[in-house]
Amino acid sequence: MSGRPAPDAVRTVACVGTGVIGGGWAAHFLGRGYNVVAWDPSEGAEDRLRHLVAQAWPALTELGLADGASQDRLRFEPDLAAAVDGVDVIQESAPETLELKRRLLADIDAVAAPDIVISSSTSGYLMSDMQVDCATPERTIVGHPFNPPYLIPLVEVVGGEKTTQEVVEWTSAFFTAAGKSVITMDREVPGFIANRLQEALWREALHMVAANEATVEQIDLSITDGPGLRWPIHGPCLTFHLAGGQGGMAHMLHHFGPALESPWTRLISPELTDDLRDAMIAGCEDEAAGRTIDELNRERDAGVIAILRALGRA
Amino acid sequence: MSGRPAPDAVRTVACVGTGVIGGGWAAHFLGRGYNVVAWDPSEGAEDRLRHLVAQAWPALTELGLADGASQDRLRFEPDLAAAVDGVDVIQESAPETLELKRRLLADIDAVAAPDIVISSSTSGYLMSDMQVDCATPERTIVGHPFNPPYLIPLVEVVGGEKTTQEVVEWTSAFFTAAGKSVITMDREVPGFIANRLQEALWREALHMVAANEATVEQIDLSITDGPGLRWPIHGPCLTFHLAGGQGGMAHMLHHFGPALESPWTRLISPELTDDLRDAMIAGCEDEAAGRTIDELNRERDAGVIAILRALGRA
Repeated sequence: MSGRPAPDAVRTVACVGTGVIGGGWAAHFLGRGYNVVAWDPSEGAEDRLRHLVAQAWPALTELGLADGASQDRLRFEPDLAAAVDGVDVIQESAPETLELKRRLLADIDAVAAPDIVISSSTSGYLMSDMQVDCATPERTIVGHPFNPPYLIPLVEVVGGEKTTQEVVEWTSAFFTAAGKSVITMDREVPGFIANRLQEALWREALHMVAANEATVEQIDLSITDGPGLRWPIHGPCLTFHLAGGQGGMAHMLHHFGPALESPWTRLISPELTDDLRDAMIAGCEDEAAGRTIDELNRERDAGVIAILRALGRA
Repeated sequence: MSGRPAPDAVRTVACVGTGVIGGGWAAHFLGRGYNVVAWDPSEGAEDRLRHLVAQAWPALTELGLADGASQDRLRFEPDLAAAVDGVDVIQESAPETLELKRRLLADIDAVAAPDIVISSSTSGYLMSDMQVDCATPERTIVGHPFNPPYLIPLVEVVGGEKTTQEVVEWTSAFFTAAGKSVITMDREVPGFIANRLQEALWREALHMVAANEATVEQIDLSITDGPGLRWPIHGPCLTFHLAGGQGGMAHMLHHFGPALESPWTRLISPELTDDLRDAMIAGCEDEAAGRTIDELNRERDAGVIAILRALGRA
């Protein structure tokens, strides 16, 4: 623990890999007032990074920059060891191939001070599979953001087999201090949570295009003008809680239970056991936290109207 | 054609079945200034319908009522034949079981004037399977809305084998005149488009809860604070177009192509053939309609900020 600062005392972040995601992370940390040291071995990476940060800056400014936040706090460093030297935390955002991630994490691990947390933006690999070549794997962890990281709040945090619980807690606390919305998972699942959901939708979309069942434009319109307007408000579970009328999720599962066996997607549904039914109902009740169906409906209505207006569509 | 008005001359709509969806349709049509005749055989249906309409009215008022719009234009009619007598179009929103829908559509068909369009809110059954017992199936069609129909713009319109092309066109024009955003499908697919996408996500969510991989609350948070903030703006395809950086969808498919074979959802992906790749790239380019990646990024950033603000989260 000697070298690791308190999560809210982090001042300097190394961004290793500065494509769309790594660059977005750099923009986020700069907007929050951190110093950022960036490293990326690809030709022209620094120019692309500075373009991305400059393009993100109006959005960051509109959301409110932290005191002292400045694009001048970005330093591009061509040497990896120099890039991670003296930083408080490292965010890796290299291309999404396992071999490359494995090697890069081992390279970072070899040159970074021993207690500094190395967080990976991987979209779905397990840290257990990525940390295998690290000498000190206990400080490696997944911190998975969403594009663009400077605007979408979510970060999924999950350790590998060799990651310590202390590092899991530190990383969640750091991202929270850095203004992110954190889901801390207590077990590894490929793709984590949001990407499994998003990917299921995306794969069905690809299947539909491949089978000439829908065009790209119809797919996008079906979401922007349909379910996509509800998901930012309540998420898929609480949204369906409201599809059940006053009976909530229990009635919804009763009403649409038979449809779960319909070929409404290429993904086969799980068996709707009593346990699963109970878990869905209890989960929605917990999440509703006392809000009645009428109250949730009003919240959804206000939210949809606000979104339509915000997007200039009402 | 004798009895069917022009799509924009419809004045009176029959809502057959007035649960969450049928009641939401009634609210929508009332807010748009139509007369609504409602029928539902279940105990207490009229009270529940009037409660639902009253609850929706503030939202409809905020969005802007049509001239003359009034809850007083709602008439509840206990007799089906009387309910559809003299109306200009019929929207069926009965419980989601095929046998019931088949019988009810035949019942409506038997008492409604011959040219009046009978549109079904079914969430996913094919009209070809539902219209089988109708004497005049050519005027039966799917007009699938999203909850709540008075706020979510999307309606998916698709005919069955026996539906005429004229009825498909009339129905799309009617819903457009009634203020909806219409996708007209030229072939039947179970679940249509949006529900296939939504259902793929939902089934993966159920699988994750069943396998203890995520809680209901984590699933909802992963969407409300993650991908759900992007989908109302550009939909899933154009959103991923931006995940590819300046290279757009082509680069995205190259970068994440390997991940399509990862177990990131229980749904197996289609083979990424050259044809599918070309269709995705061309579809995104068509939809972007000349907007550059930078312009789309700015649009997304402005949209996400607007949504976060609209929901009181920025």
